Amino acid sequence: MKTILIIGIGAGDPDYITMQAIKALNRVDVVFLMDKGPAKQKLRALREELCRRHIKDRSYRFVEAPSPPRDIGAADYRASVDDLNREKQAVFEAMIAEEMKDGETAGILVWGDPMLYDSTIRNIEAIASKGGHGIDWEVIPGITAVQALAARHKIPLNRIAEPVALTTGRRLADGFPTGIDSVAVLLDGEDTYRRFADQDVDIWWGAYLGTPDEILIKGKVADVSDEIRRSRHAAREANGWMMDTYVMRRRRG
Amino acid sequence: MKTILIIGIGAGDPDYITMQAIKALNRVDVVFLMDKGPAKQKLRALREELCRRHIKDRSYRFVEAPSPPRDIGAADYRASVDDLNREKQAVFEAMIAEEMKDGETAGILVWGDPMLYDSTIRNIEAIASKGGHGIDWEVIPGITAVQALAARHKIPLNRIAEPVALTTGRRLADGFPTGIDSVAVLLDGEDTYRRFADQDVDIWWGAYLGTPDEILIKGKVADVSDEIRRSRHAAREANGWMMDTYVMRRRRG
Repeated sequence: MKTILIIGIGAGDPDYITMQAIKALNRVDVVFLMDKGPAKQKLRALREELCRRHIKDRSYRFVEAPSPPRDIGAADYRASVDDLNREKQAVFEAMIAEEMKDGETAGILVWGDPMLYDSTIRNIEAIASKGGHGIDWEVIPGITAVQALAARHKIPLNRIAEPVALTTGRRLADGFPTGIDSVAVLLDGEDTYRRFADQDVDIWWGAYLGTPDEILIKGKVADVSDEIRRSRHAAREANGWMMDTYVMRRRRG
Repeated sequence: MKTILIIGIGAGDPDYITMQAIKALNRVDVVFLMDKGPAKQKLRALREELCRRHIKDRSYRFVEAPSPPRDIGAADYRASVDDLNREKQAVFEAMIAEEMKDGETAGILVWGDPMLYDSTIRNIEAIASKGGHGIDWEVIPGITAVQALAARHKIPLNRIAEPVALTTGRRLADGFPTGIDSVAVLLDGEDTYRRFADQDVDIWWGAYLGTPDEILIKGKVADVSDEIRRSRHAAREANGWMMDTYVMRRRRG
């Protein structure tokens, strides 16, 4: 039997890590790394730092796999994500077969919380449910970027007794979901919030949340959307990468 | 100047606490307690245990205030919550004035994450923005019951690239939000999931998540709704209180 721990490490601040995640790190023999893109070095460095800081009296090793790139030019976004996940599953499967001894435990350290806009749970479940590997697996939740954003802006996510939608930039392009006045938006590379500048909508935006590079901007979308766009693009230029999220809320009629 | 730290302590498992929350606890001179209802003793005991376990080389004191009851028979739910919050603000204001010396730091330990279906942020902001007290305040995020649920069932909250609504039992009674196939439901005292037993909907339900009393049930709503209802009511009877949450997802047509 081999054990896989999918460990949410929180979004940004290393202190977002939970005691449960620290205990999980201390069960790990091997840490699988699969970072990619322009933030790869930063993401890897954070994972190494968390292990160095929190794993006590235990030896562990890192195994790095190349993360297959998603075909970002693909016409069908869903299909391109499915293809990517099949490739990732093949990579994980090879790592489990070749880099773990029977009885060992591997950790996969996921930025934020593995439950939200992350495919690690789906990929490991697909491998485990095929059988053949004898895999036991657990999930440890982590602080998401949405929670970091709300905490840093000191706002509730929902209005009293009202719903909130967690959604993507791609889906937000179609407008707020019907009947929902509060949205938290992840994975928006297209400055989709700008579409709401003609409406009575407030925005709370943040980038590099919980890190020394953090930027926070809030206000009516009409008033701050240009400032957010300038900050986003200047920071992406300066840092080589951008990780941002926002909450938008319709004002009361 | 007085400092208020609104600290999310996670939902259930004491190990859901983050390093950031532990550091915040270690800045606290006084912990404000405001529990109520049948789970009051358990909630208070958990807060005391977290302080005992994590606050090092520092003296601190507990100050308990009676939490005003919400008028649960009120015809207008929103108005009854507003009334309750005004009363809570008065209680917090009195505690800040009478129980804190200038320069001291108070902690309010919130179950789950203060950003989600909790009024502490609104109440402290209302007091701070009135001025007069010289209050500085911060928010520390915590693991919500929704995250605990997803982790224990080992499921993603969203389908790939699709939105999720966080909502209440009360709002869910009107059906899934238009265009959204995944919902996470909190504050449902009425077994609202049962309304979906005639639809192609799956449910992942959990109670007392992350505690020794944890119960997890999943399946098609039609198949498991009676079992969930029986478990909920039997456990509430046995324990004197119930804290549960669930995710529901429409199957693909």
